[in-house]
Amino acid sequence: MENSWATFGRDLHLDLTGPGGLRAALLRALRDAVRSGRLAPGTRLPSSRSLAADLGIARNTVADAYTELVAEGWLSARQGSGTRVAERLLPRAAPAARRAPGPGPGPAGRADRPRFALTPGTPDVSAFPRTAWLAAARRALTAAPSEAFGYHTSYGRPELRTVLADYLARARGVRADPDRIVICAGFLQGLALLSRVLGTGRLAVESYGLDFHRAVITRAGLRTVPLPVDERGARTGELTALDDVRGALLTPAHQFPTGVPLHPDRRAAAINWARATGGFILEDDYDGEFRYDRKPVGALQGLDPDHVVYLGTASKSLAPALRLAWMVLPERLVDPVLALKGTGEWQSGALDQLTLAEFLSSGAYDRHLRGMRLRYRRRRDQLVAALADHAPQVQVSGIAAGLHAVLELPPGTEQAVLQAARRQGLALEGLSRFRDPAAPPAARDALVVAYGTPPDHSFAGAVDALLRALPPGE
Amino acid sequence: MENSWATFGRDLHLDLTGPGGLRAALLRALRDAVRSGRLAPGTRLPSSRSLAADLGIARNTVADAYTELVAEGWLSARQGSGTRVAERLLPRAAPAARRAPGPGPGPAGRADRPRFALTPGTPDVSAFPRTAWLAAARRALTAAPSEAFGYHTSYGRPELRTVLADYLARARGVRADPDRIVICAGFLQGLALLSRVLGTGRLAVESYGLDFHRAVITRAGLRTVPLPVDERGARTGELTALDDVRGALLTPAHQFPTGVPLHPDRRAAAINWARATGGFILEDDYDGEFRYDRKPVGALQGLDPDHVVYLGTASKSLAPALRLAWMVLPERLVDPVLALKGTGEWQSGALDQLTLAEFLSSGAYDRHLRGMRLRYRRRRDQLVAALADHAPQVQVSGIAAGLHAVLELPPGTEQAVLQAARRQGLALEGLSRFRDPAAPPAARDALVVAYGTPPDHSFAGAVDALLRALPPGE
Repeated sequence: MENSWATFGRDLHLDLTGPGGLRAALLRALRDAVRSGRLAPGTRLPSSRSLAADLGIARNTVADAYTELVAEGWLSARQGSGTRVAERLLPRAAPAARRAPGPGPGPAGRADRPRFALTPGTPDVSAFPRTAWLAAARRALTAAPSEAFGYHTSYGRPELRTVLADYLARARGVRADPDRIVICAGFLQGLALLSRVLGTGRLAVESYGLDFHRAVITRAGLRTVPLPVDERGARTGELTALDDVRGALLTPAHQFPTGVPLHPDRRAAAINWARATGGFILEDDYDGEFRYDRKPVGALQGLDPDHVVYLGTASKSLAPALRLAWMVLPERLVDPVLALKGTGEWQSGALDQLTLAEFLSSGAYDRHLRGMRLRYRRRRDQLVAALADHAPQVQVSGIAAGLHAVLELPPGTEQAVLQAARRQGLALEGLSRFRDPAAPPAARDALVVAYGTPPDHSFAGAVDALLRALPPGE
Repeated sequence: MENSWATFGRDLHLDLTGPGGLRAALLRALRDAVRSGRLAPGTRLPSSRSLAADLGIARNTVADAYTELVAEGWLSARQGSGTRVAERLLPRAAPAARRAPGPGPGPAGRADRPRFALTPGTPDVSAFPRTAWLAAARRALTAAPSEAFGYHTSYGRPELRTVLADYLARARGVRADPDRIVICAGFLQGLALLSRVLGTGRLAVESYGLDFHRAVITRAGLRTVPLPVDERGARTGELTALDDVRGALLTPAHQFPTGVPLHPDRRAAAINWARATGGFILEDDYDGEFRYDRKPVGALQGLDPDHVVYLGTASKSLAPALRLAWMVLPERLVDPVLALKGTGEWQSGALDQLTLAEFLSSGAYDRHLRGMRLRYRRRRDQLVAALADHAPQVQVSGIAAGLHAVLELPPGTEQAVLQAARRQGLALEGLSRFRDPAAPPAARDALVVAYGTPPDHSFAGAVDALLRALPPGE
């Protein structure tokens, strides 16, 4: 297999000439092959050793190129399954006018290049409130004292921490004191810091979740142990049976990706475990502001601020590009986190922090969220209605919340549906991709369909492609 | 001594009541004591053990508070010399109208609270080009493709890397390819990443430099070894005599803090050493854009881009608050740095990156630098003229560049001048503060006087206070 791929690799004409050395050339060649569809999503790449031998270059150069392309989202690496072309293509701009060759919008290109994507991870970034953000930036920068442009500490700007404390109390029931809020450059930075502060031992993670979350945790020196997830969320009652667990990473408002909220009994069990053991619950509230059927359940942190770390982010509510997130910490974690965060290595820019503070306190954030809730809700309603009309055999599970829906499939059909979707030019992800490989096998076939991402003009087309890929009804 | 201070600590009435627990209360109390001048700059604090015993609280609480206050710049910790109230008070805003008690601007408060600061580290942040920056932000955000608001890689935005490659070639003689530029959140993040990539062994540092640079290096797992600095800069010829050295951190354009450029022979010796050993020169070009007597000497990196890492920053040219810096890397360091930087933990916000790219390409950066050069040069001329008129016995050494000047003092007078400055309400730093404690003792008394920081209305007063603190002439 590997050898035949390596030959295939040669057939791909990976052109390693051009500026910037071998590494840059290999990166370019692989990106081009993925972009053009010559390497289809899901294709397994040869080992770095094998491709290096085939191309006559150093193995490290290939391994490094794979690492970079995984980081960039072109490839994905899963333990035991090697390196593959990513299923989940982050939506990219199509600056057709700037790039000379290649088809523009309109007539579709090759069938194996996705025309549509319903893959989760990104909000609708086309809806970023540019005008309102710039207006807030103008007010914030005009009013800022000179010292705001100087050095600051890793705590985060006090203006933002103060406004967030009010906002989180009001919107999410978080019991927050500005002195216990630390700003970080995204959820992952917070998770990395907390993992390092917890030190050695194990961190329980939900059996369905994100592989790069688990990677950050293990890179920090902790091991992960899967906690089973069912229709009531994570089975937190099982925490007491686990040894050497320092904390548990949970998504209580809307389990990612299965889409259920944590049952009240499970919430209580999590808190009880933390109190009994001195452990910490890390509450990943990634989309808690997006619930469409009722007022969202308050954050778990409100039950016990001394045992729950609340983690919120602007990545889903505004834009991932801001790299702004916040932790509300139990008192005894504040100093260790600040000490680790240091004085300049892990800091976020102050101007965006000031702008976000102004955006929040002026009410622009609430207005933006109201608009986005309507938009996402309409998208979800469209999807659910289309499924009811054309694929009644497919059940939508989970609550009306967030940026994705879970579509339950007949047993054993998930891979076939994903392949059919690929043939329809639709990038899509199955539930099994999110399953922790360390968890016992589960016979559950489903799709994780993100409705937030496609631009308005292509959403209907994406849903049509999805419908064509679903298994036929009775 | 410690006991008497501890008693003094009680006399300070450190009030540990109020919201947020003991840690927060102690932080507040110590900040208040420094801010109000009850704890004068340079005062040695008791050990955490001693203060904890005196206050009847846990030692860790005190130790953690010290760590945080060092991080915030209120205190400084030097090996062998304990924890002291920082000499170098970062300029703070004086929101007199918001803070109820305490004297406003005008009649000076107590003599032991600095009224003026000529301490290095920060540019004139009052000159941040708010209007031009906001205009660039508006253009950049309006023109940005939607994907710019989504997730991005740790490489940094391509728009910024492309513009920087041109700018650095033109302004600093850097041989830069956008693919070899990595954006980082300040010089310290770059230094931390590079130190970790270099792995184990030693990094040579200039015998005069910044303690927190050395701290970042050792925290990454390297040891530092001092390289003597004289009137021709770092004695790079001595690198070959040192064992187990992976690289050398140098300030070739303008040695910090002694103010001399690296002599051409020393530049050649550094490159020769790197070529012979496979080591790396880390070129800290913190203020290379500010030279007043001639066109600045090009970056050392231009001599050998395969052995020199160029590190530049917006912290001195624009504002530390941006947390934007850049590394131009030898080809073989690009992948290791990117792999370590990861996919979300060490990233900088994209909006400021896009804005800086627009700020550079529109010419606003050049215009800003021209204005700042004039401003700093005028400040420097004022200082030099005042010294020539009123303290001709004090020689200004170093070149006409950057944001600080070195004033040579008669042997043995440095500490006395610093004390006299304190009595004049002037925060000032001596050269000895920057000396690597691991370097052999040197009998050199001097002041490091930063002329960039004080607001215009107080610069003349600061210079007057300095003149009064200097030793009398013959």
